[in-house]
Amino acid sequence: MIDLRSDTVTKPSAGMLAAMTSAPLGDDVYGEDPTVTELEETVAALLGHEAGLFTVTGSLANILGVRALVPPGSEVLCEASAHIARAELGAHAAISGVTTRTWSAPAGQIDLEQIRTLIAPDLGPYFVQTAAVSVENTHNFGGGAIQRSYDALADELDSIGMPLHLDGARLWNTSVASGISLKAYASRAAAASVCLSKGLGAPVGSVLVGSTELIKEARVWRKRLGAGWRQAGVLAAAGLYAINHNVERLAEDHANARQIAELLADAAPGSVKPDQVDTNIVVADLAGTDHSVAEVVAAAEAAGLRVGGVGATQLRVVTHLDASAEDCRTAAEILARILS
Amino acid sequence: MIDLRSDTVTKPSAGMLAAMTSAPLGDDVYGEDPTVTELEETVAALLGHEAGLFTVTGSLANILGVRALVPPGSEVLCEASAHIARAELGAHAAISGVTTRTWSAPAGQIDLEQIRTLIAPDLGPYFVQTAAVSVENTHNFGGGAIQRSYDALADELDSIGMPLHLDGARLWNTSVASGISLKAYASRAAAASVCLSKGLGAPVGSVLVGSTELIKEARVWRKRLGAGWRQAGVLAAAGLYAINHNVERLAEDHANARQIAELLADAAPGSVKPDQVDTNIVVADLAGTDHSVAEVVAAAEAAGLRVGGVGATQLRVVTHLDASAEDCRTAAEILARILS
Amino acid sequence: MIDLRSDTVTKPSAGMLAAMTSAPLGDDVYGEDPTVTELEETVAALLGHEAGLFTVTGSLANILGVRALVPPGSEVLCEASAHIARAELGAHAAISGVTTRTWSAPAGQIDLEQIRTLIAPDLGPYFVQTAAVSVENTHNFGGGAIQRSYDALADELDSIGMPLHLDGARLWNTSVASGISLKAYASRAAAASVCLSKGLGAPVGSVLVGSTELIKEARVWRKRLGAGWRQAGVLAAAGLYAINHNVERLAEDHANARQIAELLADAAPGSVKPDQVDTNIVVADLAGTDHSVAEVVAAAEAAGLRVGGVGATQLRVVTHLDASAEDCRTAAEILARILS
Amino acid sequence: MIDLRSDTVTKPSAGMLAAMTSAPLGDDVYGEDPTVTELEETVAALLGHEAGLFTVTGSLANILGVRALVPPGSEVLCEASAHIARAELGAHAAISGVTTRTWSAPAGQIDLEQIRTLIAPDLGPYFVQTAAVSVENTHNFGGGAIQRSYDALADELDSIGMPLHLDGARLWNTSVASGISLKAYASRAAAASVCLSKGLGAPVGSVLVGSTELIKEARVWRKRLGAGWRQAGVLAAAGLYAINHNVERLAEDHANARQIAELLADAAPGSVKPDQVDTNIVVADLAGTDHSVAEVVAAAEAAGLRVGGVGATQLRVVTHLDASAEDCRTAAEILARILS
Repeated sequence: MIDLRSDTVTKPSAGMLAAMTSAPLGDDVYGEDPTVTELEETVAALLGHEAGLFTVTGSLANILGVRALVPPGSEVLCEASAHIARAELGAHAAISGVTTRTWSAPAGQIDLEQIRTLIAPDLGPYFVQTAAVSVENTHNFGGGAIQRSYDALADELDSIGMPLHLDGARLWNTSVASGISLKAYASRAAAASVCLSKGLGAPVGSVLVGSTELIKEARVWRKRLGAGWRQAGVLAAAGLYAINHNVERLAEDHANARQIAELLADAAPGSVKPDQVDTNIVVADLAGTDHSVAEVVAAAEAAGLRVGGVGATQLRVVTHLDASAEDCRTAAEILARILS
Repeated sequence: MIDLRSDTVTKPSAGMLAAMTSAPLGDDVYGEDPTVTELEETVAALLGHEAGLFTVTGSLANILGVRALVPPGSEVLCEASAHIARAELGAHAAISGVTTRTWSAPAGQIDLEQIRTLIAPDLGPYFVQTAAVSVENTHNFGGGAIQRSYDALADELDSIGMPLHLDGARLWNTSVASGISLKAYASRAAAASVCLSKGLGAPVGSVLVGSTELIKEARVWRKRLGAGWRQAGVLAAAGLYAINHNVERLAEDHANARQIAELLADAAPGSVKPDQVDTNIVVADLAGTDHSVAEVVAAAEAAGLRVGGVGATQLRVVTHLDASAEDCRTAAEILARILS
Repeated sequence: MIDLRSDTVTKPSAGMLAAMTSAPLGDDVYGEDPTVTELEETVAALLGHEAGLFTVTGSLANILGVRALVPPGSEVLCEASAHIARAELGAHAAISGVTTRTWSAPAGQIDLEQIRTLIAPDLGPYFVQTAAVSVENTHNFGGGAIQRSYDALADELDSIGMPLHLDGARLWNTSVASGISLKAYASRAAAASVCLSKGLGAPVGSVLVGSTELIKEARVWRKRLGAGWRQAGVLAAAGLYAINHNVERLAEDHANARQIAELLADAAPGSVKPDQVDTNIVVADLAGTDHSVAEVVAAAEAAGLRVGGVGATQLRVVTHLDASAEDCRTAAEILARILS
Repeated sequence: MIDLRSDTVTKPSAGMLAAMTSAPLGDDVYGEDPTVTELEETVAALLGHEAGLFTVTGSLANILGVRALVPPGSEVLCEASAHIARAELGAHAAISGVTTRTWSAPAGQIDLEQIRTLIAPDLGPYFVQTAAVSVENTHNFGGGAIQRSYDALADELDSIGMPLHLDGARLWNTSVASGISLKAYASRAAAASVCLSKGLGAPVGSVLVGSTELIKEARVWRKRLGAGWRQAGVLAAAGLYAINHNVERLAEDHANARQIAELLADAAPGSVKPDQVDTNIVVADLAGTDHSVAEVVAAAEAAGLRVGGVGATQLRVVTHLDASAEDCRTAAEILARILS
């Protein structure tokens, strides 16, 4: 079975497992796990921030990052299909009391004009105040798209003193595909998260980075949310291994995704634009075909391929380090056969 | 001083005060205030719902109505400048754990295409589920605009079993201006609020309507929010008086607002389109003029007129029962003089 | 029907109604209602605080006062049958994220030894920190009891820099019965609430007092909770009238309650100790009688008297300005007849 | 350095690490990690429940268990020094809106009389309703004490249909010390948690058990809290190994703790009662000595021993599988020397 539902399905390699079992450990609730500390410091340095916090998921890193920037009763702006708005079960409101207004744009892109209109100036204690703008880069439901106007937005927010939140779950992909450093992206944000268990292949974990002060508060809230773990170094070791071994190879995933997109575009013209597949995610819109998402998912499963739906008519295919170029070609052929 | 900042600034008339002091009272926490009960039943009947709940503000009626339809962690969709999104201090998230995604449209209008894209189908326990769509009618920051596609949206939501929430703070104005009954609007919604202290001139209070079950739960949450009042009949009497005496006359406010808009359009072409002033609110955009909102507000104050800002470049003028046709003409002349 | 269920059931007198209809009004959301402002300043001065905030209920005043002192995730300590713990529907947790630990004491009294043990020193970010101690004075479910160790607790909290919250819904009764000024009590607390719609006979409203800073924040949260009202001066006028006319006469209510207690003690020995009836509330414990609360409540209703239950075996009788000495004697005779 | 601050400081053994690296894995967010599933089913069976959920911490298992039993605005009763009340940073209120009332008892024991008084009958929508009683067994800050009246409380709660929540972080210790099965305890509760990273020595993780329905809801909330992990089987494997290898040996920890208590009782008479040391935790009260907690902690550290404070005058010593009998004897001698 070829599993291209998500890049979260990868399993630790032998090398990664060896790193996990040989790492020095300690009780991270007391701040004493040396491997966790090494991971947090490594990622903070890579992203150009003072401090880092190892979290059990990217969702948790986003929950902690957004709440550090946005007080209860204030708002964060984001694109309508951003992960924080669609795929975190409303945690920002349900747990942190943070409200959201959204803009909509193709491929989940930053839309400067809409954002300018949405940002609410401080009109006194009658109105909700915008406290941050959040951007996902690459944008998952936007088909792994790289944000075109990231620096322009960061410049504009800087000019009005409004903090930027970066959901960089797949920032590794952004950086490898664009050739721009992780730091060049993340240092523009007041808080940023990166995920170790997606394209990088670690079993569990993300890292939130920000100022020392922000991370200190996030650490308390991580514990309040029941997620202050003990000998987490066993997982942090996997993360460090992933950072050292699995970043550059993301270029292969990107090439594989582009290849899949090209076959899908041939089989179902209009469903996907290959030249807009920036990284490792292909979102094909089946609206113009005779096929429903559920039907394609089932037919693919029967043919030995797992893919998933991410909307009423949208199919998502994600390449990753456990799917070889050959696997991806096979997958593309299965889908092309179903769709044509 | 002519005060056109809001239609909330009106003061109870002699007749209204007399009604207030002669009303039978009781302890409404025990459900024993006959005047409160009469008001709740009267409004429920007018709006075509089973039951009503008298609340201290329209914001509270909205908080209770939205939370009854949208569980914590789920979302309500609304226009980006809706009162629930901009002017309720983030209460829906901060208190009820409800999250929001928004569309943007001129005059705060319903945009069916955007709404269709935003509505999130139930994709299982990974995604935020849309639990309701909220519409403000008339739309305050949209310049008192009547929703053009209200019935079309209600039909569409009906067809997918998605509840509609109606923020009808100024539904009295909608109904008087459109000639369509309150019930024709409100009965399409699963929960609706109307305000007694805006155009109708009561000092305090709104009413939430819905099913008996919904109102029963809302009553408990009203108490939890610290807003279960005692001899509230003294205020309910004002609301009943307002309903009996001050609805039809809203047409005068609408005529006055149109007149103001015409003079402003002459003085500052492009700032406002008089034929889009549906009811009692004129929002003038000063972006194309040489004047800032703060400057115009100050100059008007010096000339004996109070108006307010509702955005970076937007001035709001609101007519009401304490401002005569002559007052409104004077106000328009003051503003015209400042702007031209 | 004589109604002694609560002192909240009183209705405004003719004099009070006249005050309400002649009061100058304004829009209090804009801070422009002169009568509201007068009430807030009057109560703040009476209680020895910088500022006041007029709220729709005592529960709301407590919600705002406690949240101003206790951050989410921290705790307030209180007696287990305090109004904030039992009768505010869990708002402090549900809305403000504030947690509670409690001590239990006869008549809801302060128990210094238990409080000392409960106060949690700041042991770092692993433990819940005590942020305030709350005391209800008089204590409603404690039978209207005056706190014997109020000053001793205040001294002790002062010495460790721990703020005191005073739920003074019936502080008027405390002061009249003890002969100690309102200010002597309330100035010991960082935030205090008093109620106008209980013994004082106003239809609606309470006042929270505290520092200018605390009240400013409370005002924003009042609006967020949907309780920022408009021409509330009509109710504030009733409050001012009540303060000017109905405080000293509370001594009559106290005498009436003592008389009721004496008759009940005769009829059902052990159910109540008359010399412990400090103010206007009599809580009789029926555990040692053959009667259930429900049965006594029903029998009294049939005989023209309303009383209520406040626990499994506890009956509560409350005297107030709408129940004359004769009414109270009649009530006591009805209850004595039922119980003996 | 001998570390007896907590039984959370243990590190995975070689056998445990081997189990971790050989476990079959999958994506647990999709419910596809076979090792996680095996752990959840194993623990559910051991505890006599339908289903289990693997969580990152015991705090999270408690957060999910309590919220499943107690709606926002309702209350859970617990002892005042219970872990859920003292050591979970107020999460139950801050995240779940759950309020708490507490009783106080020596060694954190169940006090049936106090609990009976605290349980609030359903008196209608004015009062907070008791929705569950929570018991910690063994009781951490109560010195690892076994609950003497566990079955009596469970019987009593059964008789009134009130659910019991069991914080069984150290239920393994309870069971080994009492000889009563895990199931006999846990099956009395509607929701129970056990911890794998305390006495059992796994690096990370706890398990919540309950009905299929309860666990299904808890799974959604686990994801909302940002704690739905991916290839968590690597940690679940450690938990399974711990259950298979490290339960019976807890008796050694108990013997070691008793030995420490005896030496401390000799050195500082009255500070601890050895016959009340039920399991692996010794809490010594230094109130009657000349020593402060901070001073003893520092002196022990200098002598090669780590212990911790859990209150103003309380020192806590915890034995575990990484501290041999000899280590514990050395530790006791160090402390005895400091205290005498």
